[in-house]
Amino acid sequence: MTEGKIAKGDVLRVDSFLNHKIDVRFLSEIGREFHRLFADCGVNKILTVEASGIGIACVTAQFFDCPVVFAKKSRSSNISSAVYSAAAHSYTHGTDNNLTVSREYLTDADRLLIIDDFLARGEALNALVDIAAQSGAALVGCGIVIEKAYQGGGDMIRARGIRVESLAKIASMSEDGIVFDHG
Amino acid sequence: MTEGKIAKGDVLRVDSFLNHKIDVRFLSEIGREFHRLFADCGVNKILTVEASGIGIACVTAQFFDCPVVFAKKSRSSNISSAVYSAAAHSYTHGTDNNLTVSREYLTDADRLLIIDDFLARGEALNALVDIAAQSGAALVGCGIVIEKAYQGGGDMIRARGIRVESLAKIASMSEDGIVFDHG
Repeated sequence: MTEGKIAKGDVLRVDSFLNHKIDVRFLSEIGREFHRLFADCGVNKILTVEASGIGIACVTAQFFDCPVVFAKKSRSSNISSAVYSAAAHSYTHGTDNNLTVSREYLTDADRLLIIDDFLARGEALNALVDIAAQSGAALVGCGIVIEKAYQGGGDMIRARGIRVESLAKIASMSEDGIVFDHG
Repeated sequence: MTEGKIAKGDVLRVDSFLNHKIDVRFLSEIGREFHRLFADCGVNKILTVEASGIGIACVTAQFFDCPVVFAKKSRSSNISSAVYSAAAHSYTHGTDNNLTVSREYLTDADRLLIIDDFLARGEALNALVDIAAQSGAALVGCGIVIEKAYQGGGDMIRARGIRVESLAKIASMSEDGIVFDHG
């Protein structure tokens, strides 16, 4: 995590290895660790959200030998009987997104692992959890690369009884640097 | 390609394995083939565009042992000195996008392979080629999963002297089915 940059407005920039340029070797290490954590859970599908979740999910899926489904973001509230959908506000971009997944790609026969790059206030992850619930799939848990623990999203979702594993948990962040939570 | 569906408006839907649900084993076969085609080109970086290019690019990059950079799409014409940018109209979505890449992630020291899922009229690929040219990087070529050859985008880009390799070339498409170009 020496490559992360702290930008204005409490934004951690990880453009250099995760969000714009992608260090694919690093993704393999991430995928291996998610597989170690969720190896015994019978995962048969990985759910993520476009765009930056897709690379992490695909490399992780190689370890589970399973397909990926990525939720699509749209500005409009696309109420269609053909999709599961849930709203998610992006504090980073100041936009309201609607996340959608076609019903044909998630069913109650699935055992899902949700993967995403960031967890802060939990808006996107909460929407993915809602979509999983709409599908009737069994949700074995969520694998997150970086959790900004002080923003509370992770604990909110854990309080729903959902297992959330974050590879790096940030306890606090300021211009002086990042304090990790090793607990 | 037995899984592709032909939808209205000359749209080939590959949601079931490439564009929404992703068959990650299939991505490995794609990556292996792109590596075979461009193995001797000294590729040190792969350039693609969000969202559906990212998974293909990341798995392909594993074969080249190199990083991926994905261009971001925005509706606004984001003229900033910090980015390379090029306009691309999406006929599928009826939108005008501006593709951008941070200058710090592409330089004249790079030997680029461009990867994308679809090539039809060539709007997105043309924009990626323009971005590569702005960076001064050497472009070794473009690897495309599915080219709709009858829409002419591939030949337009080949006419610019750029190597374009498409794993499946569609000669024509109608409600009766798909005719592949095996030439």
